[in-house]
Amino acid sequence: MYTLYYAPGAASMVVHLALLEAGAPYDLRLVDLDAGAQRDPAYLALNPHGVVPTLVVDGRPLGESSALLMLLAERHPEAGLAPAPGTPGRGAWYAWIAYLASTLMPPFRLWFYPQDLHDTPDVRAAVQRRIEGVWDHLQAHLATQGPHLLGEQFSGADLLLTMLMRWSRNMPRPATQWPALAQLADRVRARPSWRRLYEIEGLREW
Amino acid sequence: MYTLYYAPGAASMVVHLALLEAGAPYDLRLVDLDAGAQRDPAYLALNPHGVVPTLVVDGRPLGESSALLMLLAERHPEAGLAPAPGTPGRGAWYAWIAYLASTLMPPFRLWFYPQDLHDTPDVRAAVQRRIEGVWDHLQAHLATQGPHLLGEQFSGADLLLTMLMRWSRNMPRPATQWPALAQLADRVRARPSWRRLYEIEGLREW
Ligand SMILES: N[C@@H](CCC(=O)N[C@@H](CS)C(=O)NCC(=O)O)C(=O)O
Ligand SMILES: N[C@@H](CCC(=O)N[C@@H](CS)C(=O)NCC(=O)O)C(=O)O
Repeated sequence: MYTLYYAPGAASMVVHLALLEAGAPYDLRLVDLDAGAQRDPAYLALNPHGVVPTLVVDGRPLGESSALLMLLAERHPEAGLAPAPGTPGRGAWYAWIAYLASTLMPPFRLWFYPQDLHDTPDVRAAVQRRIEGVWDHLQAHLATQGPHLLGEQFSGADLLLTMLMRWSRNMPRPATQWPALAQLADRVRARPSWRRLYEIEGLREW
Repeated sequence: MYTLYYAPGAASMVVHLALLEAGAPYDLRLVDLDAGAQRDPAYLALNPHGVVPTLVVDGRPLGESSALLMLLAERHPEAGLAPAPGTPGRGAWYAWIAYLASTLMPPFRLWFYPQDLHDTPDVRAAVQRRIEGVWDHLQAHLATQGPHLLGEQFSGADLLLTMLMRWSRNMPRPATQWPALAQLADRVRARPSWRRLYEIEGLREW
């Protein structure tokens, strides 16, 4: 049994999707970010950074969405979220997760929380260029080696990427303007886990 | 047999350390960053981002230092770089690697490559504050739950952290000004892998 601390559509989404894909039993706890609940002392004791997600695993609270995706993929191998250890796609699985977590999530964080760094129009424009540069790179990869990040094989890395694409929906150039990205998003959005998450988290817009 | 494309002291260092810890056979290829060799078309075919490291694993070129650390830990379980799957420290292993890769490596990249975002004194000061904020957080963690990131147990996450601490050595406030960090660095620098790497890569300063 897992407990997931989440906010609708936030970085917790990929963890929630992985739980649904695995069919694992879990409890959900809403963290009301608008009300500042992520800074309650009780929550900071679970997650010292005051962010979602936190997943309680065997009684231990753990953070970092990409880490939790990897951990759930490993604990539920039957869900097929990751190529098995020792198989050819294994290295690429780790590499794509690390790339998305270290190259795409940080500029998104700056886009949504500009005060984290330095909030000026020039920085904002640079952050936007960085995000769009990642879409360019992913388009080139998916157009030649897609349709998924790991080729023919769907993986949890596609869940992470689609969550991040969704975050761009109100940006000047949303990820779905890149055709191979739009195709991947359509595949992932057609999965039962995605539809079920929308119901549970009460999401509407893509 | 692995092939590691590296530059002395760069992000490739943690991968090189993991290879040495594992006692795995490998070939080394120097990428002369000052000469721009990372942008040679032959290298870009291996690593489209034009960065080190690249590790060739079973004939496939792979990037992302944190991913390569996780992959090597998995392929060489006898090296003890990571808690085994299913053991209590496993979630924290993934979480610390993801934290360092997504929260500390990106501001370091901006510190060394300010043109990646927007190069002004204000941004630079903000980047410095972010890096120092991570040292504060790590100090609090290590002082109560150390001496390693995973407690009593050394892991490859300590190699990654010590490489990143080393990168701060010429900053206004190097990581070793935080006592629990300095202690961890001393432990890691006493390991045979660290000394051997200094010889092979020709490093001098800490
Ligand atoms: N590196 C973290 C980042 C999580 C994060 O930034 N979450 C945001 C929501 S998407 C949050 O909780 N923000 C609340 C706040 O910063 O106050 C992860 O991947 O889990
Ligand atoms: N996310 C990458 C970043 C690697 C990186 O930025 N490497 C730097 C050296 S530490 C590099 O190759 N820089 C050369 C350049 O950008 O031209 C990783 O962790 O492997």
